[in-house]
Amino acid sequence: MATETLQFVVNRHKVPVTLFILMYIDVLRCQPFTIPFRTPSDCGAEEFFDISSLSCVRCGPNQRRSTTGLSCVCQSYVSSYSVLCFYLQGVTKDGFGCIRCPGGLSNDGKCQCPPGDVLVERDLNGTLLEEARCETCDEDSPALSVPNRNGDSIILMYLAVLCKQVVFLQGFSNLTACQALGNMCVMNMHSFSSASTDACALFNNIFRTMAALSSTQGISYWRANLPWLYYGDEPGLASRVLQTDPVPIGFSFRGKNKNTDFRLLAAVYNVRGEFLRWEQVGGQNLQLCPQPKTKRAAAFSFGTAYKESCVLSVAQLFATHPEPLFYDVFLDLGGGENTKLLPLPTLIQNQQYNGRFINQGWIYIDCCEKAFAPHKHLHLQWGKKVFSQPPIVFQLVRRTQEGKVFPPLMTVTYTDVLITDLNTQTVTTFAVEYEMDQSEARLKTDIALGVLGGVAVLYSLMKTISWKRRIASSFIDLETMVKFLLFYAGDLANVFFAVTVGTGLYWLIFYKVCLIPLNSRSFFYRIIYILAVQFLHKLALQVTVDIFLIDWERPRTKTNRSVPVSGESKHDTSPVSIWRTYFVANEWNEIQTIRKISPTFQIMTVLFFLEVLGFSNLALRDPWSNLQRSPEEYTPSYSLTLRYGVAATLWLCIGLLQVIFFTVFYAHFVEDKIRQFVDLCSVSNISVFILSYRCFGYYIHGRSVHGHADTNMEEMNNNLRREAESLCAQRGLLPNTEVQTFQVSLTSRLGMQYKRIQESISRRNQPSRLTDASTLSSLEPHFKAYQAMNHFLGCVIDHAHSDMDYIVKDKLMFESVIGMEFLEPTEKSIFYNDEAHTFSNVLYYGNEATLLIFDTLFFCVVDLGSQSFVLAAVLTYVQQVIFCFLRNSLGRKNLANKTLVDERFLI
Amino acid sequence: MATETLQFVVNRHKVPVTLFILMYIDVLRCQPFTIPFRTPSDCGAEEFFDISSLSCVRCGPNQRRSTTGLSCVCQSYVSSYSVLCFYLQGVTKDGFGCIRCPGGLSNDGKCQCPPGDVLVERDLNGTLLEEARCETCDEDSPALSVPNRNGDSIILMYLAVLCKQVVFLQGFSNLTACQALGNMCVMNMHSFSSASTDACALFNNIFRTMAALSSTQGISYWRANLPWLYYGDEPGLASRVLQTDPVPIGFSFRGKNKNTDFRLLAAVYNVRGEFLRWEQVGGQNLQLCPQPKTKRAAAFSFGTAYKESCVLSVAQLFATHPEPLFYDVFLDLGGGENTKLLPLPTLIQNQQYNGRFINQGWIYIDCCEKAFAPHKHLHLQWGKKVFSQPPIVFQLVRRTQEGKVFPPLMTVTYTDVLITDLNTQTVTTFAVEYEMDQSEARLKTDIALGVLGGVAVLYSLMKTISWKRRIASSFIDLETMVKFLLFYAGDLANVFFAVTVGTGLYWLIFYKVCLIPLNSRSFFYRIIYILAVQFLHKLALQVTVDIFLIDWERPRTKTNRSVPVSGESKHDTSPVSIWRTYFVANEWNEIQTIRKISPTFQIMTVLFFLEVLGFSNLALRDPWSNLQRSPEEYTPSYSLTLRYGVAATLWLCIGLLQVIFFTVFYAHFVEDKIRQFVDLCSVSNISVFILSYRCFGYYIHGRSVHGHADTNMEEMNNNLRREAESLCAQRGLLPNTEVQTFQVSLTSRLGMQYKRIQESISRRNQPSRLTDASTLSSLEPHFKAYQAMNHFLGCVIDHAHSDMDYIVKDKLMFESVIGMEFLEPTEKSIFYNDEAHTFSNVLYYGNEATLLIFDTLFFCVVDLGSQSFVLAAVLTYVQQVIFCFLRNSLGRKNLANKTLVDERFLI
Repeated sequence: MATETLQFVVNRHKVPVTLFILMYIDVLRCQPFTIPFRTPSDCGAEEFFDISSLSCVRCGPNQRRSTTGLSCVCQSYVSSYSVLCFYLQGVTKDGFGCIRCPGGLSNDGKCQCPPGDVLVERDLNGTLLEEARCETCDEDSPALSVPNRNGDSIILMYLAVLCKQVVFLQGFSNLTACQALGNMCVMNMHSFSSASTDACALFNNIFRTMAALSSTQGISYWRANLPWLYYGDEPGLASRVLQTDPVPIGFSFRGKNKNTDFRLLAAVYNVRGEFLRWEQVGGQNLQLCPQPKTKRAAAFSFGTAYKESCVLSVAQLFATHPEPLFYDVFLDLGGGENTKLLPLPTLIQNQQYNGRFINQGWIYIDCCEKAFAPHKHLHLQWGKKVFSQPPIVFQLVRRTQEGKVFPPLMTVTYTDVLITDLNTQTVTTFAVEYEMDQSEARLKTDIALGVLGGVAVLYSLMKTISWKRRIASSFIDLETMVKFLLFYAGDLANVFFAVTVGTGLYWLIFYKVCLIPLNSRSFFYRIIYILAVQFLHKLALQVTVDIFLIDWERPRTKTNRSVPVSGESKHDTSPVSIWRTYFVANEWNEIQTIRKISPTFQIMTVLFFLEVLGFSNLALRDPWSNLQRSPEEYTPSYSLTLRYGVAATLWLCIGLLQVIFFTVFYAHFVEDKIRQFVDLCSVSNISVFILSYRCFGYYIHGRSVHGHADTNMEEMNNNLRREAESLCAQRGLLPNTEVQTFQVSLTSRLGMQYKRIQESISRRNQPSRLTDASTLSSLEPHFKAYQAMNHFLGCVIDHAHSDMDYIVKDKLMFESVIGMEFLEPTEKSIFYNDEAHTFSNVLYYGNEATLLIFDTLFFCVVDLGSQSFVLAAVLTYVQQVIFCFLRNSLGRKNLANKTLVDERFLI
Repeated sequence: MATETLQFVVNRHKVPVTLFILMYIDVLRCQPFTIPFRTPSDCGAEEFFDISSLSCVRCGPNQRRSTTGLSCVCQSYVSSYSVLCFYLQGVTKDGFGCIRCPGGLSNDGKCQCPPGDVLVERDLNGTLLEEARCETCDEDSPALSVPNRNGDSIILMYLAVLCKQVVFLQGFSNLTACQALGNMCVMNMHSFSSASTDACALFNNIFRTMAALSSTQGISYWRANLPWLYYGDEPGLASRVLQTDPVPIGFSFRGKNKNTDFRLLAAVYNVRGEFLRWEQVGGQNLQLCPQPKTKRAAAFSFGTAYKESCVLSVAQLFATHPEPLFYDVFLDLGGGENTKLLPLPTLIQNQQYNGRFINQGWIYIDCCEKAFAPHKHLHLQWGKKVFSQPPIVFQLVRRTQEGKVFPPLMTVTYTDVLITDLNTQTVTTFAVEYEMDQSEARLKTDIALGVLGGVAVLYSLMKTISWKRRIASSFIDLETMVKFLLFYAGDLANVFFAVTVGTGLYWLIFYKVCLIPLNSRSFFYRIIYILAVQFLHKLALQVTVDIFLIDWERPRTKTNRSVPVSGESKHDTSPVSIWRTYFVANEWNEIQTIRKISPTFQIMTVLFFLEVLGFSNLALRDPWSNLQRSPEEYTPSYSLTLRYGVAATLWLCIGLLQVIFFTVFYAHFVEDKIRQFVDLCSVSNISVFILSYRCFGYYIHGRSVHGHADTNMEEMNNNLRREAESLCAQRGLLPNTEVQTFQVSLTSRLGMQYKRIQESISRRNQPSRLTDASTLSSLEPHFKAYQAMNHFLGCVIDHAHSDMDYIVKDKLMFESVIGMEFLEPTEKSIFYNDEAHTFSNVLYYGNEATLLIFDTLFFCVVDLGSQSFVLAAVLTYVQQVIFCFLRNSLGRKNLANKTLVDERFLI
């Protein structure tokens, strides 16, 4: 028996402000626990306000209301009792019985004890003793089991006796004793002890004894005359109370039924169990931090995640709350005259069982799966005081658009604070949270991911097959597997991206107030890694692409004068100028990294929307959608999910608008770089042959319709004018067509041949450096190879190689959509008409979707990590610059390598 | 006589919290008004605490300290007086005289009046009446001049009599009467009335009567026993008190003498004139808004501009301050044992004279030039209550690095509030401000502007002369005037920019806390307009520049075989290919808008520094220079001057670093577009001739050292290699030199000739459009003119025109610096060697300073207008894009127009 520890007595969901103790929700019956709102002044002349049931109760016969209105008094009996008792020495304290006194009588005829002693008139069962006893509040007294020097146990026992008495003699006494006993139990943190001196044990003892009596307000856990401290202990009751029946009011942010504020009312009792008043929660009572009124009020605006936290000294708390108060908190359900109240269930974080904090880590959503094993544990000690930090959690009903909520839960945590030093600082917090069961949303997301993931597998598989065909290989080797994984990773990342953006947008639009807690940043980090890998993969393909510029120009004297092609012309005619090739190569170099959007404009616009127009305020955890907030208003914290949703949506929308603007308007009315390049090829009499895989690539037909392009300004202009006036043939590869761009699917023979010549062109960089004097001679074979390639490709295009012939045909719509060719080019290569300029696939231009998604996710992920849109913008810009620079310089090197055009001309 | 208005009585610089009234500073004597800090407990056994002088005063002989320590009591006289008075019926109220009573006697031997009556024992001069009178507090009573039903006037009179009595019978009574009278005067807003019933008039009457008596604490405006309510009324006293002697403490933010907090102490009196306690200002007394403690404390951190403002209901104010308190505020000067206090002068905004609010619009700095004409005015009415909003202004001593301040001034404004409705909302504000006399700084700025403005005139004049010479004109016409004004405006704007940035930076570094109030946004708007005009002027010059590409290439057969130049070769040889010209023109088009910095990187970096690294916090109005602020701390408002200083400095610094990086590192190790262009000219055998004015321009010598450039890839590579191995001549215009770029100063004949040919080239766009079929023939003459120009310029460069010859010389250093040529090209044109590539002056590249300054100012001005760096960044970006687009498209049109290169090749 620990005689040093104090044993307090206890109460249901009262929250004391300076000496807080909290209630424990076990499990509740599925039933709307609401009570009508009554105040003492509401009660009629023959009714009194029952402070335990918070309702008006009719006084018994021959009774009238007392002056306070909180109890009834007998109209005449007391005096007769005192007369009666004259013979039996004394009147009992309650005035309804007689008892023999151990000492003298007081003025009103009751027993009197010496100072310091306590008068005991009944035993623990409430039976009147024959003779009253004066119990000394002495440590060693054997009269009561565990007394201590402060006499608390005696007071406790006494309270219990008084309370029981109230019960037995219903309506004949005041009800404060039961409330005080309840308070003691609350201060004892709803202990599960069964020790005879534990306040909660005493309370529960009375509670059980009263099982036969009717319950109050139709709530079976609320005994008449007793405060309601505990819910029952049936399994599953918590889930039924908290997650089955919504509160019968709905919140709405728009329309004529706009209802956004909720009101919490508290019945306030003092430590002696006296009912003080009804008080509205907020401001002076539970919100202890100094805050402007306008900000404070936000806590009771439905849907606004509210949190205030500050450091207060014990002295300050004492100044504002000199005596402990106990709050019994209710949600006001409205209804004018017939205002109903809903008792707020409360969770005590400190409650222990077997030395384990059973309520910690209690998550609202999962409450119902958890079992509690209550047990008595004491942790109050002298010299310590306990303060609470109550957050209130609203759980929204899923699948509702009407703002229905389940009964909100109040969570209280007590901290020990030494009261010996009044300057001790303690942190106090008040918060209101909103949650929602997301198991269904999660399920939907999982389904979407599953289905789309399956599609991604198929799509990646198809990509792999297409790739195998394009490189003219049919073995399944390690490279194939790696390639498949790369494709799959990319597709999967896109799927994840689509699903997360969709989810974010969905929550933003429908359930702004209650959110998926975005705990999974690492998930996003992983997606961005995958996307980065996919992006680098594409970059790598682009900067290793095979490209050759076919010059159709022939020395002029030959064609002009039809002189027989013989040895003489070779040194008589001037060589064909290389400058057209330089020009085309230079332009090709310049269109490497142009995009369908302006990336900087994109960043600036997004930043403008988010930071200047205030779109970032949409991500605040409250129900409002206004973009500008005044500094006087309370600013809730940001929701990461909403930040992601807002930023990604904005980025994608602005990106899309830009793509539309640039591809539709700008390309038609200002300039289209890709189209310009194709035209340039035609004017300069140069064709471009690109192989992105060994047997697949693109061909831009640039043979001049004028036969010659290497001419002076006057003739160039004349040529252009003649073409504008349709005085010459069309530019297409086939006669009388205009199609200049093709996807080419080569036979493996042609592919092999190309590769062989290409290798001898490119091999030059390996043996020695350009600056070497010895390279003078070693370059010779490369130019020969260049000439050979020029000749070879020219012949192929001209159908001069009968064993490497080709046919031109249209691609099927379906082939275009899935990006795969059905026909395998075995005998003849196939040139597919391609008016959509898909050769831009080997440039940034053709990969806008990948780039846009990558940028979006990059931006969002930086923001998730730093919560700063500006930083995200800056880093996104830096990322773009770096990749652009990389792409440009590697692409330039590749171009110089493959076409033999000196890098100095690629400026 | 307005009997409905209440007449109150008054006090010096006490500030009541619920019934505030304020003090008025007239003018003070030049003398350190400090007093030692004493509390009642500091006084010795035979001393009492004099609540009027706030010092310990020795009790008279035969006296001892009273129990409160606030007065002395006689050791034995009182009893003897009562004995004496027995014969004279009654003892006076003060206990030091006898008087005949009109009615009965009280228990202690004093006269007794019927309830509601006031006992009057003395007349207004303090002379004891023979018989005391019981004055009924009756409205119509003629006994006192303006009594009213509340008896206030009577109380006032009585207070005055009591106070006078204190004076006459020094030390024999308590001093509360004088304080109470002072309080009444304070509540009357230090009225200037002379009405006999005005509290201030009564006070001043006593004050004047006491002129003979010694002053307290060595302050001549502070009479013994009286509260100090007014400063004297000598002219110029205000300036001497407020702006002559610094407070004898210094504030310092660094080092071991770090002293950043100041402490205000207040002697608190109640409305009855009783001294309550010494109290530290802040927290509960003058800072009424609910604010966290950490934020509140910032008000008393020296140098932090503090402002709190909130709406409170009258009920709330009553709750915290149930009775009016009067504060006499002092600045704690420190000093341990001998702590000194400085009384705070106070300014009442509501003080009226002749119905005019004489203290409104009172600016601290100019206080001394203003004269006040005090006059009585009453505005207190029943049913109204008055609240104050006191800001405290510190004025810093100019030219000091030690944080010296002049005595701070407290300003109080009272607002009328109806107390009939306790829910009336009223705004309460508490602010601390820091100012500094900026007349000297302004003078310095003016001098700087004057001197630099003068220099600007000279410089603009020189520019105009240089321009006149370059266009070979010598008349002073309207165009010259306009040009001069344009130059001058630009230079002046630069001067303003330099001075403002310098000033901003100066304040940022030396006096972060006390600032020029930047009221002159319009000034900046004007600068940006001027700069914009200058910028557009430059743009206009750039996009109208004359440019011609000289092709040195001659048909190959001629030079190769040395066949006599005759008719035969003309149709036998192939034409010279135009593609080199296209290539060079294309490249020229591309370098139009490249800059020495990356503008987007610039914006992003500045934004990163300001918003992410927190440099914007440097512009907060407090003395701290830390970049990160916790949200718990108080955040002062921004200073516009500092925002300007921080933003402009950052922008310029980062810009400068970028310029250095791009011109030193990037140009040398990665690529230098300008150098590349010059090289390209040389390789492509094309010279560029640019005329920015009629007779001044640039020449890039691009004649190939190999004779031919129109050749195939192999030969091109060989040529390049031979050059790398120095196997051929150098590229310079003069033999054996490398200088390829020149500034050219043409003779007017050459200029005229060029202009004539140029006109016939460019005229083509005027008659008809290119698409016209009729243009086919009409283009012919232009190509002829083109050929002529090519030939003409080639001849000039080759010294073939003896009458248009030129010489090559070095430019003098001084000529380069001022941008003007001393020699006038009369006989021969002059080609100045120009290795610095100044031809970039006709591009963005050579005008980086203008662009950078324009961007900086644009950014800053947008920020000044919007206080948003993000918006400034976005708009600066948009501005850059627009101007870049304009410059590019106009430049491209000009190039196409001047060189006949089709716009379709300028991609």
